[in-house]
Amino acid sequence: MPSKTNIHHIALVVENIQDALTFWRDGLGLELKEVKDLPEEGARVTFLPVGDCAIELVEPTSEDSGIARFLKKRGAGMHHVCFEVEDIEEIQEKLKVQGFRLINETVQIGENGRKYLFIHPESTNGVLVELYEQ
Amino acid sequence: MPSKTNIHHIALVVENIQDALTFWRDGLGLELKEVKDLPEEGARVTFLPVGDCAIELVEPTSEDSGIARFLKKRGAGMHHVCFEVEDIEEIQEKLKVQGFRLINETVQIGENGRKYLFIHPESTNGVLVELYEQ
Repeated sequence: MPSKTNIHHIALVVENIQDALTFWRDGLGLELKEVKDLPEEGARVTFLPVGDCAIELVEPTSEDSGIARFLKKRGAGMHHVCFEVEDIEEIQEKLKVQGFRLINETVQIGENGRKYLFIHPESTNGVLVELYEQ
Repeated sequence: MPSKTNIHHIALVVENIQDALTFWRDGLGLELKEVKDLPEEGARVTFLPVGDCAIELVEPTSEDSGIARFLKKRGAGMHHVCFEVEDIEEIQEKLKVQGFRLINETVQIGENGRKYLFIHPESTNGVLVELYEQ
């Protein structure tokens, strides 16, 4: 049975969103919509739609945020891939039983009401994976 | 005008495709189709469809391949993101004029006849970007 899972977005950590747009908007031709400040996360973000998915650019806005630490340690680059799944509780339970390392032991609810969780790169061949419920 | 660009696949370098399937197929539920040997590249690959995109798993099969060197240096993880574009020559010319660093100065033709080129991570916020023509 084909999977109903989709790629929702690919998140990149960048030094500066405006500078990054030189490639992603002006070079590749993606469309800039809104840039959103997330002071509680010490970051600002933008989602550039591409087909049914998006490229998320994440820029740190405070020096002690997780994103700032990521950038300092690893430089700009891929942060995570987010997949949309049909039933996040079902898959979370399945992943736990199978022994995968979840960063969130329980499903989280974002400020937009969306259910999500992160899976540790140790269980996913080095790629931080986020799941969203559709 | 909305971009006609799409994400075609996200490629991950893994130690071993069979082991990696534990998460990507058995955990996340993606479907395994064919695993293909590419002896001239010292690698074997598989594309797991996810919506209109795919996760590509790449495993080195010879110790002196680029993929083996990548794995040794950086460990398993994201290798590149591939975007499908409408007119690859047009975008290649545009990217050159804009001063982005292309790994392929001219458009390449793959064994399947598909046109492609790679853009250096230096120009793309640390992410190796491949372009395919639709």
